[in-house]
Order: sequence, then structure tokens, then C-alpha cells
Amino acid sequence: MNNFWLSLSTDIYFGKGQVNVIGKLLKKAGAEKVLLAYGHGSIKKNNVYQNIVKELESYSISFIELSGIDPNPRITTVRKGAEICKSNNIDFIIAAGAGSVIDCCKAIAAARYYNGDPWDFFTRKASIKKALPLCAVLTLAATGSEMNGGTVITNEKTKEKLSTGSLKIKPRFSILDPAYTFTVPKDQTAAGIADIMSHVFEQYFSYPESTILDHLSEAVLKTVIKYGPIAIEKPYDYEARSQIMWSGTIALNGLLGTGKDGDWATHLIEHEISAKYDITHGVGLAILTPHWMRKVLNNDNVERFAQYGRNVWGIEKKDLLETAEEAIDKTAYFFKSIGIPDKLSKLGIDDSMFEEMAESCLKYNKIGRFKNLDRDDITEIYRNSL
Amino acid sequence: MNNFWLSLSTDIYFGKGQVNVIGKLLKKAGAEKVLLAYGHGSIKKNNVYQNIVKELESYSISFIELSGIDPNPRITTVRKGAEICKSNNIDFIIAAGAGSVIDCCKAIAAARYYNGDPWDFFTRKASIKKALPLCAVLTLAATGSEMNGGTVITNEKTKEKLSTGSLKIKPRFSILDPAYTFTVPKDQTAAGIADIMSHVFEQYFSYPESTILDHLSEAVLKTVIKYGPIAIEKPYDYEARSQIMWSGTIALNGLLGTGKDGDWATHLIEHEISAKYDITHGVGLAILTPHWMRKVLNNDNVERFAQYGRNVWGIEKKDLLETAEEAIDKTAYFFKSIGIPDKLSKLGIDDSMFEEMAESCLKYNKIGRFKNLDRDDITEIYRNSL
Repeated sequence: MNNFWLSLSTDIYFGKGQVNVIGKLLKKAGAEKVLLAYGHGSIKKNNVYQNIVKELESYSISFIELSGIDPNPRITTVRKGAEICKSNNIDFIIAAGAGSVIDCCKAIAAARYYNGDPWDFFTRKASIKKALPLCAVLTLAATGSEMNGGTVITNEKTKEKLSTGSLKIKPRFSILDPAYTFTVPKDQTAAGIADIMSHVFEQYFSYPESTILDHLSEAVLKTVIKYGPIAIEKPYDYEARSQIMWSGTIALNGLLGTGKDGDWATHLIEHEISAKYDITHGVGLAILTPHWMRKVLNNDNVERFAQYGRNVWGIEKKDLLETAEEAIDKTAYFFKSIGIPDKLSKLGIDDSMFEEMAESCLKYNKIGRFKNLDRDDITEIYRNSL
Repeated sequence: MNNFWLSLSTDIYFGKGQVNVIGKLLKKAGAEKVLLAYGHGSIKKNNVYQNIVKELESYSISFIELSGIDPNPRITTVRKGAEICKSNNIDFIIAAGAGSVIDCCKAIAAARYYNGDPWDFFTRKASIKKALPLCAVLTLAATGSEMNGGTVITNEKTKEKLSTGSLKIKPRFSILDPAYTFTVPKDQTAAGIADIMSHVFEQYFSYPESTILDHLSEAVLKTVIKYGPIAIEKPYDYEARSQIMWSGTIALNGLLGTGKDGDWATHLIEHEISAKYDITHGVGLAILTPHWMRKVLNNDNVERFAQYGRNVWGIEKKDLLETAEEAIDKTAYFFKSIGIPDKLSKLGIDDSMFEEMAESCLKYNKIGRFKNLDRDDITEIYRNSL
């Protein structure tokens, strides 16, 4: 096992009605004027908004709203949010929504104390030195953003989607109420499940090998594979929503990657697609994943794919390659079975920008650690996904 | 899934040479005069002591030593440590050793700010309101104390071994260097493995059922079952020591019990034995566990024991009861195979105090949640373990 440092400093309040702790926790943290940030208002339909406002009012905490945060959150919204924080002396941020809202709020929290353009954090021109404290009230099981320090933001002008991270923007605490995900539509539930699985894959298919991490990763995969279809079939199944929500957080809070050099190729290759075409991240991941797997599968790593097949899918073939290939097929079939489109062309995407996207992909990063991918490899994955 | 709150606030520095961060971290925490606490000097043989002292000296942090902390740490040592902290204005504690040293330091940290007798914390007469900050430098994979807020202390006068817990006594950070466990003798390595497995069992065999927690728990069990014998055979195998160390921390940092009502019968029944006979906790657990399993196995929970058999031991029988029974047998055989005595009588224990121990067991607690056990049940488990 490689050396590692792990900080899991976000306190988790999990379960029905846990939003009731938010006023007390904010008061304890000294919050007097908070930014209440959310997306396009779904939190008003399922009472999340009302519950939070009630809490703030009963603790006499004033607040300003920032609404309209998009999926694939924009740097322009980050700039706007930072301005609001600066000019109103905001001292705490509540991110109420999915990973997009949380990511946007993390960037706002850092931008509040930065005099330059916050896009600098994403192009590696600046690092995060200070940030407003924030918390999350999660409404979609997917990104794991509720318990980590990462953020992914889209620059709609340059059509880039880039990430950065810092301990300073990790939520102080997160409210995970599975009932808040009852009203998530089937397609978004499915995309969230694909996102969770992809987070595990990015860490599972990486080096060095680690038995404990392998089995912990398989635990998350088996759980969402079991409960994903149930949540889609019965959106109000509390147990299914709970299992998926908690699995989603564990998938990307750092635990599964301790001492490993994660791959993240599929994520980076996908970011280009959602940056250019504004599609749902999890859908892009689901389409690309089997093609990434087929592209990187080779003699050196066939045992690892076979292990995935045996331990997650219960495949009992003797031949390693056959087991690996069946595991990949099962992965693709699973995504299809929960209703995710299996081709980029079904999203209206053509091959006109593939070369440009592959180029752009490589602008700030090497792509892939499990297997390093060059421009041609990436283009091929796009083409195979078409 | 039941509601839960989870705080994993102990930062983990894992790997070879990580002790080198301790001076910097203590300085950052404002430490000026620390208590360096340890056991009977094994840390001087493997350079752990020297490494820590070098760090303290290079950051000009003064320190006072408390040595001689016993396995099954005593309340008298807690009192002594608290006195040292009070009279020397200690502002941070370094617990360098196994779980016993860490537990003792946690109790000292709380006792420092308590005017009564620290035993009050364990008899529920007082709760922990304030504590000195502490960190751990772990030298034995077993208790998980390095990442939780629990402590177990023995009162040598009343022959009681009781536990308490608080967020306030959770280590601020812990150094987990697997190389520090190279010199742990075979019998202590085996006892540590039994302790880790028991921590998982106490949470796995409990309600409500939870798929994600089941599979995470199975991950820990499979890992230590794989690497335990390797570490005993080859004590200097870094990978084996790493896998066991990290598994031991995960086993009892709170994650595996989120939203569950842990059983803890075996632990409480064992505490009576180590309180009365001062045996190694992990050995007592290994002896008792299969007998606890056989005692509680019934129609209502046979599926859970069978699941354990299937997922951890790969048993493929069709009959549930047969699978469950074979799983229990395999558990007993595993403990024996790593060199742990399989009967209390082999430790020089007879049946003379069994009734008294069963009585004492029930003094502060109900015993068992998975199945509640009365005085006769507990006595029977002791007798079957003889």
C-alpha cells in the first residue's frame, strides 16, 4: 500500500428529517448571514427549501438566495455568487441541491476571498488559500461532492469543464436525507447511479492493487447494482434511496482511493462532452465506460477485470479474458437496463468535434494512469461510443 | 437504514515514515508541552520512541513521559497521568503504542479537566465535557482506537473493565506506520486480528440489515482473513501489515455501524474475563466468538449467518443452517489456525467465577441486541468456552 493522508472532516447527518439540525449547527458555527444556493427550484416542490428557511428563521439567521445554478455549473454563476458574498458579508454558504449546486458553492466559497478571476483555480493559475465555510443539503445521490473537497466547473465561453480541489472547500457538514431524493426523475436517478459506479471504477481500476480497497469498492458496486433498479422502479422506496445515497457518498469521500493513483480517464474524457454539449455527466460516463474498459483491457490487467466480474457480477467462467469481457458486457447492459442511452448519437452528438475534444482533454492533464491514453486512443473511445 | 450521525474527524497519516509529520502537526496545533505516553518500552526497541523524540526536539516542543501503561490499562494509571498533565500544564498528549495506550491517554485527556475521580466516566456518574487534544502513533493493528472516541479502562480494585466514549477524546490525528508493527510477536498479531474481526462481527450481526454495511464489513473480514496468516508467517511483510492495519482502523471508526444498533455482547462478556484474569482481550474474544455465535443462531437470523458463510468463507451449500454452522466452525478453526488458544482452560481459567462474571456483566448494560442474553445465557457461553 502506498503512503496516504486522509481527512474525512465533513460530519454526516443522515436520514429522514435531519435538516432539523441545520439551524443549530449554523448558529454554533457563528453564522449570521448565509447564502442559500440552489438550482432551478425543485427544492421548493419537495419542501427542502421550506424546511431550510424555517430553520434559518427559527435561529434568526438572515439569508440571501442564489438560485438558478445549472447542472454543469457555470463559472459565470461562480463569479456572480462570489460578488453576492462579498457585497453582503456572507459568512456561511448552504448548498441545497445536487452535486452541481455543491460544486458551484465550493467555487464561490473560494472565490469570495480571491481577487482574481475564479477560473484561475481551474486552469492552475491560482490555488485556494481561504474559503467561506459551507454545508450541503443533498438532493441527488451521485457526485459524492457532499463529503469531499473537489469541484468541477464549466466555462461556457471557452467550452471547458475543469476541476480543482482543496480541503478548505470541503463541506463542514452535510445533510443526507434519502427522502429528498424520492422525486428525482428516473433518468436522473439512473445517471446518478452511473456516476457513483464510475467513481468506484476510477479508483478500482488503478494501481497499486489493494485487497481492502478492492473489496470496499466491490461493496459499493454491489449495493448500487442491487438497489439502483429498485429505486427506479419504486422511487419512494426509502431503503433503496438510502442505500444508494450512502453508497454515493462513500464512493468518493477519499476512502476507496487511499494510497492509490486513481485513473480518472473516463471522467476527463466525459467532461469534454458535457462541456461541449451540456449533457448529463452520468449519462456520458455510462456511455463511455464500457468503451474505456474495452480499450484498456490487456494482458497485464485482465486479472483485475476478471476479479471485477467474479466479485461484482458473480461470473464463474474459468477463462480470465472471457470473464473480463463478460463483466464489461454486463456493465454496459446494466446501464442500458436502467434506461440510460447507450450511444452518443442518441444524444444528438456527432463525430465533428472528436479530435478537438481529444486535444482539449490533454490540455491540462495526462489522461489515464491505469493505462495512459493518447489523442488517438481518446478519439477512438469517442468513435466507439458513437 | 436508520438515521445516523457520523464524524470521522481524526486525520490519518498512513505509511512508512509518516511519523515525520508529527512535529509540524503539533506545532500547528499550538502544542508547547506534551505528554509522551507509552507502554513497557517496546517503542524504544523499534525506534518509534526515538523518531518521536527527534521530531519534538526539532520543533522545540518540550515533553514529559508517562511509561508503563499496561495492556488492559488501569484507572490508577489514568489518575497518575491526569495528575502529571495538571501539574505540568500539558497541552497535548501523544499516545504511542497499541490500543491500550491510546485508550489510557483518552481517559487521561478527559480526566485532566475533571475534578472528580475519572472512574466516574466509566460508571456513568459523569460525562466527558472537556479534554486535552491527543494524537496516536499506532504500534499494533487491533482496537481501532486510533480513529474513534471510545476508551476501555480496567479498575484493578473492583476488577471491572468498563468503557466510555466522547467525540472530545477522539485523536486529532493518528500516525499509522505498518512498519511499526513488524516486531509485534505472532501471538499479539493473531490477537489483534481476532479483535478486528470481532469489531466487525459486533456490527455485522446486528439490526437493521444494511446491504452496503454488510458488504463493507465483509471486505474487512476477507482482507484480514487473507493477510492475517501472511503477517504471522512473515512478520516483515509490509503489504500484509498495511492491509491489516488499515482494515483494523476501518473496522471501528464508525463507518461499519452507521445506522445500526451494534450487538457488543461478545465484547462485554469478554471484558469480564480480562478484568478478572488480565488476559489479552483479542484472545478472549477469539475463544468466546464461536460460542456466542452458536448460542444466538436461530431461525430468525440463520440467513445472516449463512450470508456471512457465503460471502466471507465462500461456502456454497444450499441448506441455510448447514451454511451457518459451517461458517461458525470455519471462524473457530481460523482463530485456532493463527495460533490462538481455543479454550479458556488453556489460559488457566476455571469455572469458579462464571456466575459472578455473568452478574457483573449485566451491572451497567443490557447484553446483546442481535439477541438479548440473560445471566444464564452468559454463563452458558462461559461454560461452553471452557
